Amino acid sequence: MDTGKTSMLALNARKGYSLDRNFYCDDGIFAEDMEHVVSRKWIVAGHVDRVRRKGDYFLFKIGDESIIIVRSGEATINAFYNVCRHRGSLICTQPSGRVSRLTCGYHAWSYGLDGELLAARLMPADFAKKDNGLHRCHVRVLHGFIFINLCERDPVDFDATFGDLERHLDFHGFAGAKIAHTQSYPTDANWKLVVENFVECYHCTPSHPEFSSMHPPEALIAFGAGTSSGPADAVQDYLPTLRAWERRAAALGRPSGTIDDGPDSSHLRLLLQRTIREGYDSETEDGRPASTLMGKRRAFDQGRMYLSFSPFTHLVATNDFAVLFQFTPRRTMRTDVDLTWLVDGAASDYDVPRMTWGWDRTTKQDKEITENNQVGILSKRYRPGRYSEHERRVETFQEWYFGQFGRSDS
Amino acid sequence: MDTGKTSMLALNARKGYSLDRNFYCDDGIFAEDMEHVVSRKWIVAGHVDRVRRKGDYFLFKIGDESIIIVRSGEATINAFYNVCRHRGSLICTQPSGRVSRLTCGYHAWSYGLDGELLAARLMPADFAKKDNGLHRCHVRVLHGFIFINLCERDPVDFDATFGDLERHLDFHGFAGAKIAHTQSYPTDANWKLVVENFVECYHCTPSHPEFSSMHPPEALIAFGAGTSSGPADAVQDYLPTLRAWERRAAALGRPSGTIDDGPDSSHLRLLLQRTIREGYDSETEDGRPASTLMGKRRAFDQGRMYLSFSPFTHLVATNDFAVLFQFTPRRTMRTDVDLTWLVDGAASDYDVPRMTWGWDRTTKQDKEITENNQVGILSKRYRPGRYSEHERRVETFQEWYFGQFGRSDS
Amino acid sequence: MDTGKTSMLALNARKGYSLDRNFYCDDGIFAEDMEHVVSRKWIVAGHVDRVRRKGDYFLFKIGDESIIIVRSGEATINAFYNVCRHRGSLICTQPSGRVSRLTCGYHAWSYGLDGELLAARLMPADFAKKDNGLHRCHVRVLHGFIFINLCERDPVDFDATFGDLERHLDFHGFAGAKIAHTQSYPTDANWKLVVENFVECYHCTPSHPEFSSMHPPEALIAFGAGTSSGPADAVQDYLPTLRAWERRAAALGRPSGTIDDGPDSSHLRLLLQRTIREGYDSETEDGRPASTLMGKRRAFDQGRMYLSFSPFTHLVATNDFAVLFQFTPRRTMRTDVDLTWLVDGAASDYDVPRMTWGWDRTTKQDKEITENNQVGILSKRYRPGRYSEHERRVETFQEWYFGQFGRSDS
Repeated sequence: MDTGKTSMLALNARKGYSLDRNFYCDDGIFAEDMEHVVSRKWIVAGHVDRVRRKGDYFLFKIGDESIIIVRSGEATINAFYNVCRHRGSLICTQPSGRVSRLTCGYHAWSYGLDGELLAARLMPADFAKKDNGLHRCHVRVLHGFIFINLCERDPVDFDATFGDLERHLDFHGFAGAKIAHTQSYPTDANWKLVVENFVECYHCTPSHPEFSSMHPPEALIAFGAGTSSGPADAVQDYLPTLRAWERRAAALGRPSGTIDDGPDSSHLRLLLQRTIREGYDSETEDGRPASTLMGKRRAFDQGRMYLSFSPFTHLVATNDFAVLFQFTPRRTMRTDVDLTWLVDGAASDYDVPRMTWGWDRTTKQDKEITENNQVGILSKRYRPGRYSEHERRVETFQEWYFGQFGRSDS
Repeated sequence: MDTGKTSMLALNARKGYSLDRNFYCDDGIFAEDMEHVVSRKWIVAGHVDRVRRKGDYFLFKIGDESIIIVRSGEATINAFYNVCRHRGSLICTQPSGRVSRLTCGYHAWSYGLDGELLAARLMPADFAKKDNGLHRCHVRVLHGFIFINLCERDPVDFDATFGDLERHLDFHGFAGAKIAHTQSYPTDANWKLVVENFVECYHCTPSHPEFSSMHPPEALIAFGAGTSSGPADAVQDYLPTLRAWERRAAALGRPSGTIDDGPDSSHLRLLLQRTIREGYDSETEDGRPASTLMGKRRAFDQGRMYLSFSPFTHLVATNDFAVLFQFTPRRTMRTDVDLTWLVDGAASDYDVPRMTWGWDRTTKQDKEITENNQVGILSKRYRPGRYSEHERRVETFQEWYFGQFGRSDS
Repeated sequence: MDTGKTSMLALNARKGYSLDRNFYCDDGIFAEDMEHVVSRKWIVAGHVDRVRRKGDYFLFKIGDESIIIVRSGEATINAFYNVCRHRGSLICTQPSGRVSRLTCGYHAWSYGLDGELLAARLMPADFAKKDNGLHRCHVRVLHGFIFINLCERDPVDFDATFGDLERHLDFHGFAGAKIAHTQSYPTDANWKLVVENFVECYHCTPSHPEFSSMHPPEALIAFGAGTSSGPADAVQDYLPTLRAWERRAAALGRPSGTIDDGPDSSHLRLLLQRTIREGYDSETEDGRPASTLMGKRRAFDQGRMYLSFSPFTHLVATNDFAVLFQFTPRRTMRTDVDLTWLVDGAASDYDVPRMTWGWDRTTKQDKEITENNQVGILSKRYRPGRYSEHERRVETFQEWYFGQFGRSDS
């Protein structure tokens, strides 16, 4: 395990300060990030609604990898490296589709939906098809979310990592949800800048007027960087409102609870539940819903759930729709940012423009902000700067990040 | 000679398997390829029809080099590095043209068509024009084909290498042929992937419907990877047809014979002659000719010649036209692929769309295939895969490739 | 100070010959150039006319740096690194504008026009705003020209370097000049190729018909490479004309004198004054003025001043307008070339197309020439070539360049 470069620089990391510029622009550190962080995590590749029927597939691209996510049976979704075992060609070249077999377009080697090699013409007599199935990628489905893990050995235990999320995911009905809209915002910045931007709300007021309009300012200050993360008086101001809402939401069936994994955890999960702007039923411009209630809800409770599966995958759920955020490292200074709007599986009369109004604008703003951050950091005069009290979660992320290089499972 | 990287990796090369990914994407290995392989070979830069008149020139770009191919006399074609001896500027900036002198557009240093420096204003008294002629590139013309060799020392003997091809080239009339059409298919893949794709026909059936429609399937299976390279029964099936055709073709004047250089040879030449689809006179969609008979032919013989001058230059000749294939390495993952359709020098009523139908479509397919191969190989999970019995020539190419790094002339 | 690579190669530099190819295309040498040459010099970022009113700013990009040039008071212009002290974001994202504060768009950290941090919400109690002002860039204004210096320590003394230019700049009225036009010619070539092209006129006759039409050929030959730099007889031919003009110009108030810093100087300045084409009042197509007389002039004197502040900044002044040339290294093979046409501050009826006719065409030609030079030099067969007698100043530049790596102030 060569983590020399990252370890050396980490020694220079100063608590409470942003990272050294090399963490954001050095190709060697990006390669280490891919090996020791990205390739060790369970990352959401997409929602099962993309592969409802047997043979449906889509490609998930991460770093230099292309992963085929394919439904091979009613209860089975497989993930394979999109690399033919013959001479390494991509097998699937379209972003999504439906197939009965996975057939390489080059020499027609043909694999079953379970990855087994079914046909390869004119091979030597001692060639064993059974040894030439597609390279499998670890895959698990949890209430509609398809997780993959690039680890070449045994990955972190999935159930132990995510099992306690089931009751929340079940209440929101994600297993049966359907995709209302998707949008990509490819961002020319290192993945850590994309994550750091997303895990703090210090920038919400100056940068995100639409987002800010849908939320109680006191909640953004008190909880923007995690549970009770804001200044003490802001927390005190907001707590009575929050507690009253929690009781009301519980009465309507919402599972209560908070998750706040520490920097020593494998996935740095976070689950927060709180109110949206007073009088608003949904995170829309006017607060009116854009779809029907999701999952097991019986009435609008004027709340929202924020759930981080990991720094790479986040979920924001208002009562009538949810947004899945995927931050996928591609190159040192390029990160794919993909949003998926989910609605209840039975919803038919939903309004996409109203539903996407907030997060589409907000994510475009984040793309611009983050790209400007990347360019600024390239300056030789950039020096790590002090974090505000509102950026505690960025510090936690940084601590978690450095911890990945010393993990026994990495 | 620093061939450390390639030699080390070659030790890991496993016979019968595709190469390690670094051979296809590592910049250091590409630099070694340029130095020890590409720069040591006689490579066809183009056909003399491009430079019929004195002063006609065209540029041939290979790696970072731009070579001026210019006719300086009725019997003389010269090749020069397109680099002014003054301060290194490109001299010719247009892809082709006609000039009386080679004059650098920067400071007007002017060279004769023989490369001698004729004029350079205001130079110091001890400046010797005779020492400042253009850097010559080795060049030879063989029956219309202009070969260059980038070697800084004495290159491999040209006549010893290609002399035995004369009777074939003469019969096809290449010296007097003219260019009917040219087309470029720049391919984002390492040059070895482009070559490997071209020297096997295992992919023809799945990937090339047009090409396959013009050929007897049994010939593709039996001879697709070289003389009698296919499975024994396929060879047995096809041999009677082939022998009958050889007699018929010989009776019509076609020189017989086969060339199949081994992996220890300098240029890995191959010359194959066989039938095309029964009832077809030419490699066109309906089998009807697209031009008049080439060269010394007296009648259509329903055959075709395939000739590899080297892995970088190939020639396919049906009775009425021929296609020249140039595979020119430019960068690690970029190869120029250029096709030139040649017809008899006296042809006037030829049909370009019908003539190009097969290979234009086939080469576009090859570009796509090869680029997908390159992307797939970038995956960290790619592992060298087993070759089929139909890819023997790919193995031979690989063996030849590794042999280049230990050659006494490299 | 790691200047190993450059020093080693410099040993191979042969006097009177162009540089080794690595000086023009090696990323390591470019990094050394940025550190030891570019970052040590006073470079003109622009003219004060761009920031006339308090709060006016523009960005100057050099290498990976973005510098904010902002007027903070009637007599004060500041220069700051465009890098927020918080997390490194660009602060200004538009090329120019007018602001009352410099506010980062990310988290709204707000700086005064003097660079002091004025507002940063929610910071820890021990955070000291006074320690978090913007990183200052050295800046000086000399008769309207804004110079910056990226040096992290004390830069070369400004007044000692440029003080003797004041009487010339004052006569031309540059302090009060205004910008008539600007144009960018980004050039895909190493900065040294751009400079070398500009400091010799050996290429003027073959490459620049418009430029050559506005000048006496004998002056170009005699003085094109610096004072009396041409062949002795050419100098003899031109000197009488020059001397007569100098007397006439002096009688009209023009300060006389020549500056010709040697290669040991810090900035390699040059100031030349000479005639333009006989009968011409201005450097225009027909010789008629394109604007009113600049500065303290009382009448047209048919002369022009050429002033190099450094290899990166040049000024050409005819009687009625002047052109500022900025050559700004960005990447190894990319240089920003920006021209600014200046007229007298009181001019109102000037003719931009006529004024830009000569240098716009000439600079487009230089861009093409220089890019062709860069491509040619990439050839492995490029070898340093002999300079003509007309390129003495290129040799001087080269000598100066190598000297930068051993300077006590570098």
